[in-house]
Amino acid sequence: MAQASTAGLDEHAGPVEIVGAGLLGTSIGLACRRAGLDVVLTDVSTEHLRTASGLGAGRPRRPEDRPALVVVAVPPDHLGEVIGEALERTEGTDAVVTDVGSVKAGPLAAVAGHPGAARYVGGHPMAGSERSGPLAASASLFDGRPWAITPHPGSCPEAVARVRALVDLCGAVAVDLSPAEHDKAVARTSHVPHLLAALVAGRLAEAPVEHLRLSGQGVRDVTRVAAGDPGLYGQIVSANAEAVLALLGEVRTQLDAVIGAVEARDRGALGVVLEAGVAGTRAIPGKHGGPPRPMRSVFVSVPDHPGELARLFADAGASEVNIEDVHIDHDPGRPVGLVELVVEEIRAEQLLTSLEARGWTTQP
Amino acid sequence: MAQASTAGLDEHAGPVEIVGAGLLGTSIGLACRRAGLDVVLTDVSTEHLRTASGLGAGRPRRPEDRPALVVVAVPPDHLGEVIGEALERTEGTDAVVTDVGSVKAGPLAAVAGHPGAARYVGGHPMAGSERSGPLAASASLFDGRPWAITPHPGSCPEAVARVRALVDLCGAVAVDLSPAEHDKAVARTSHVPHLLAALVAGRLAEAPVEHLRLSGQGVRDVTRVAAGDPGLYGQIVSANAEAVLALLGEVRTQLDAVIGAVEARDRGALGVVLEAGVAGTRAIPGKHGGPPRPMRSVFVSVPDHPGELARLFADAGASEVNIEDVHIDHDPGRPVGLVELVVEEIRAEQLLTSLEARGWTTQP
Repeated sequence: MAQASTAGLDEHAGPVEIVGAGLLGTSIGLACRRAGLDVVLTDVSTEHLRTASGLGAGRPRRPEDRPALVVVAVPPDHLGEVIGEALERTEGTDAVVTDVGSVKAGPLAAVAGHPGAARYVGGHPMAGSERSGPLAASASLFDGRPWAITPHPGSCPEAVARVRALVDLCGAVAVDLSPAEHDKAVARTSHVPHLLAALVAGRLAEAPVEHLRLSGQGVRDVTRVAAGDPGLYGQIVSANAEAVLALLGEVRTQLDAVIGAVEARDRGALGVVLEAGVAGTRAIPGKHGGPPRPMRSVFVSVPDHPGELARLFADAGASEVNIEDVHIDHDPGRPVGLVELVVEEIRAEQLLTSLEARGWTTQP
Repeated sequence: MAQASTAGLDEHAGPVEIVGAGLLGTSIGLACRRAGLDVVLTDVSTEHLRTASGLGAGRPRRPEDRPALVVVAVPPDHLGEVIGEALERTEGTDAVVTDVGSVKAGPLAAVAGHPGAARYVGGHPMAGSERSGPLAASASLFDGRPWAITPHPGSCPEAVARVRALVDLCGAVAVDLSPAEHDKAVARTSHVPHLLAALVAGRLAEAPVEHLRLSGQGVRDVTRVAAGDPGLYGQIVSANAEAVLALLGEVRTQLDAVIGAVEARDRGALGVVLEAGVAGTRAIPGKHGGPPRPMRSVFVSVPDHPGELARLFADAGASEVNIEDVHIDHDPGRPVGLVELVVEEIRAEQLLTSLEARGWTTQP
């Protein structure tokens, strides 16, 4: 990581104030403490506050505290209100206010016309959606994760720089987007995928148990995110209604096209939708933000008990091929697992040869 | 594995004949050869045939061969026709005919009323959909995978037993279903998830590159299967049109409910759909066919170069906690990965303590 400007975020400035000591707030507190900053915490739940303080994420706020940065990390429904309060409380200072909400339209509407609006810059770290509460927090939660920074046209450059300094010290990767662009982006990459995963998963809930015995890795992958907290996702989707509805309208049009194509046994029309899907999977950026590299999967049979995966990875490590991704297939009837190692296409042969020489049963 | 009956599938019976030397056919040939059986191969492509023979999957068919079992492993569009030909060619013998097609309605219609119909029993191994061709074949492709056996009411018990013997010797787990039940099951667990994944992925194809930088593991999981061969999936979905359309109708109704709920800001209605999704993810059977056990994810930061995963798994192995699943998060900007280790909830603390003691940065 390049040496980042502290932009008024250092031990000589005022503390970082975190409002909401849940998973994200507490994790940010831990990261700021790790960087040697003074952190003050507030939460409507005294238990959360006590837990977060006990974990070393910061100290309770005192009336005389003059924060350099206020990070609002409350549930979506309360974001606008709490951001407004923070701007009022810090009026007449140069305190910067940011938030970590999943949707930026609501907070922006709340600060519009506010005299302190220039000191507000939205943010959104892409981390932590499947767990919650301060006990799940970690200073390294944001390591390498995208963190959207979403200034509005009135945000002052110093405020943007201070939020960027926070993103840097949390180890995240800044992605600059306007609030409206951000909301469209997460509707596409997060909210609509979540809703459709829930629709697929909902069909499983009604299925005969015998039918589900044919479940493979595919349906597990498609539905995994649908296990997330329904209350939280209800808030998020509602807060991003406009962008979500625009995409759901497209999905509905395409779903009608699929239904029509299947009814009419029209392979051409069905192929158009399936080809667009292939193109979409290729459009997702590659690891480390680079262009997608061609990958290949190597499948290995692994006995299902402690130590065998260690042995496999030790042997894979000895091959000096970097493993880009791993999937373990849940086999429904026997004590052996099928492990999928995803590697760069040009390294696959090297890995196969190396593993086979060490006695593993592989499949190309 | 319990000692299985050979049911007329042994070195003293006639050969196993495999029609179609692609990924599945060649893999079955290799598994049968591994079991010491004589295997004969045919394919419309002489190149496939030569490759499969060269790999040791069997020998070209001779006119005097009298197979004990014919396995039809051709693309969905040709299944019915080739199964009918196999029954005709073996008329007057007790040869059993099976297939490995993804949809059972078509083959069944093709054999209905055929004098040899009692000798036909459908099958469907749940393996190999993302790769193709004989070069990708492996004798262990079916290890621990479900393999549906789908007799029709006229199938004779000896024929069912012989197909079961094939499933056993391939190392797969037999799942008994009627053809109609099978087709409904795969519509739900495979075809409809694939189509909806394609619809989600299709929206990504049209997205601005900057928006896709916010892609996390969730959208990657949801869309992964949509990378599969559009031609093959077009055939499969078309062949299972009835069951697929019934479920797509349900999805459309539910999608309209979601759109209506978001438009009306009706959290209750949205919650019903999201809760059904959570229930669905819990309905998928656990590993080894048992009831789902409570799992917990442990997150570990891992430098992104060869050997580090090996070190992690060696250390995890030393903790004596069995790793049930692994995900590697693709981080878009820095040379460190976040590895998710899924373990039984009651073992998570043990793993965390052990990894931290060995110097790993973990998150609960």
